[in-house]
Amino acid sequence: MAKDRFVIAVDLGGTKISSAVVSLRGKVLASDYRSTPARRGVRAVIKAIADSARAVRDESRLPDGAIDGIGLAAAGISNPDTGTVFLSPNLPGWRNIPVTQMVADATGKHVFLINDANAAALGEMYYGVAKGHRDFVYVTISTGIGGGIILGGKLCTGAAGMAGEVGHMTVVPDGLPCHCGGSGCWEMYASGTALARRAREAVQAGEKTAILRLAGGDAKKIDAVLVKEAADVGDPVGARLIAETARYLGMGLGSLINIFNPSLIVIGGGLSQMGDALLKPAFFEARRHSYRDAFNVVAFRVAEPGSNAGVLGAAVYAFEQLNKRP
Amino acid sequence: MAKDRFVIAVDLGGTKISSAVVSLRGKVLASDYRSTPARRGVRAVIKAIADSARAVRDESRLPDGAIDGIGLAAAGISNPDTGTVFLSPNLPGWRNIPVTQMVADATGKHVFLINDANAAALGEMYYGVAKGHRDFVYVTISTGIGGGIILGGKLCTGAAGMAGEVGHMTVVPDGLPCHCGGSGCWEMYASGTALARRAREAVQAGEKTAILRLAGGDAKKIDAVLVKEAADVGDPVGARLIAETARYLGMGLGSLINIFNPSLIVIGGGLSQMGDALLKPAFFEARRHSYRDAFNVVAFRVAEPGSNAGVLGAAVYAFEQLNKRP
Repeated sequence: MAKDRFVIAVDLGGTKISSAVVSLRGKVLASDYRSTPARRGVRAVIKAIADSARAVRDESRLPDGAIDGIGLAAAGISNPDTGTVFLSPNLPGWRNIPVTQMVADATGKHVFLINDANAAALGEMYYGVAKGHRDFVYVTISTGIGGGIILGGKLCTGAAGMAGEVGHMTVVPDGLPCHCGGSGCWEMYASGTALARRAREAVQAGEKTAILRLAGGDAKKIDAVLVKEAADVGDPVGARLIAETARYLGMGLGSLINIFNPSLIVIGGGLSQMGDALLKPAFFEARRHSYRDAFNVVAFRVAEPGSNAGVLGAAVYAFEQLNKRP
Repeated sequence: MAKDRFVIAVDLGGTKISSAVVSLRGKVLASDYRSTPARRGVRAVIKAIADSARAVRDESRLPDGAIDGIGLAAAGISNPDTGTVFLSPNLPGWRNIPVTQMVADATGKHVFLINDANAAALGEMYYGVAKGHRDFVYVTISTGIGGGIILGGKLCTGAAGMAGEVGHMTVVPDGLPCHCGGSGCWEMYASGTALARRAREAVQAGEKTAILRLAGGDAKKIDAVLVKEAADVGDPVGARLIAETARYLGMGLGSLINIFNPSLIVIGGGLSQMGDALLKPAFFEARRHSYRDAFNVVAFRVAEPGSNAGVLGAAVYAFEQLNKRP
């Protein structure tokens, strides 16, 4: 039996840093969760990553030399080939940050950067709800919309490691400006942020809704979860806003079905936990916007909440990249 | 040196049937072109395919037993796994036609069905402008918009062989109904048919334009080529309609760049021959709708007119499928 190998995998989100020591066989030897000090700037976040990596290594009791490298899954728009995060909507001040280099400097390890949704797609394929599937699309719906495309059992990375940015398909001509620089992007219409924006607009337009009360009268505190809570207690505005968001969600899913003809679409991210209220009308709309035979062969699965797919996928990616090295 | 092998490759279009005997090494031994008797119904078209296949085999002087099978590239929406063409906008009456079985019955050969744009993508990779590229998107812009996705040097076929239908991404919510059953599809806004429709609408709205005169006063005769001719002689309406079409074209190209991060996009089909008037503003718009780093690594190439990529790609596909057989 070959000697086992180990990497540290880190999933860097806007609110949370999750780290683990993971073996080549997928065993988690140690984990660490800490909040992301996003407001304290880039250096504080890099230090938190390095501290978290050190914590899991210590807990694993492995000697430092036994750790082959670090797989770093990061939210936002990044170029894995250059190791740069251009822009991360959830990490204020992150613009053109050479994160790979910075984490390498802080840890002394090789660092392999991967988009968080790409990592989650790999994690779902190896350890999650996509086990056994070799052609599927992973879509995460939360603050924004991210994606990971698996074809023939391999992550589709693209020419600069940037493939899978399905949240930035244009779904509305001359649509809302997006933080990515484009406009009319899918995530501006079908993400949790979009749902919350619709709710704030409804409140500002004077619509009678329980949402504002649930937000303690402060429109700024309205988020997707509150809209769902309102809908759950029978608020018709909340229900309508979810249905509107679902329509755009389904439209984009239909496009992905026509482009990829996948056997499976995995829906992850916070909004996936809204369940049928969001997903049923979304799937109905997806059917309206895709070929019958393509729709008929696609299964939809919701990622398990707290599945750790991002961390595990970052580990898979790091092992893949290490194997490519001479 | 291994014995060479041969297939007959057929590209079935709405107006033309192109056939060839092609060797495994990509040599064309014989070719045949004939018009598609589309108006005479399905059986007449099947017979024309069989006649064309027989003609190239006779011309090649190969014994019938030397032909391993037939690769059939067909326009329209098809399910290669079942060998069925659901719908071909250019072939009236083609709905749920078991074309693989019908051509096999008429020729006594195994038939392998592939979407025509998928075939062209393979042809461009092996013999055309995409030679050497292993990750690219082929987009054909003519009556409709078709696509073929090559990742890691392989055609992305999807779960039922239907992948690559990029023309049916939704780009306009509640948009124009599409013959595919959906609405707001990209090809309803960025194809040659869309350009001609815009011109007819402009004429009907009483706009002063040279287009109607070029069409001999008959609005029904307006097509994309006439709009281009009008723009070329300085007609401002023609120029505006092309710019409008280019905008939608670029929007969809931007989405594809964000989804695939390709190193190359090959533009084929009749409208690709419009050149800069259409493509320059389209590429400008694609840049507005895609990530800078993804846009910066993508090259655009126009397919060679009359490149035969569809026929050659159908041959490649047939050889691939034959190799998969026991």
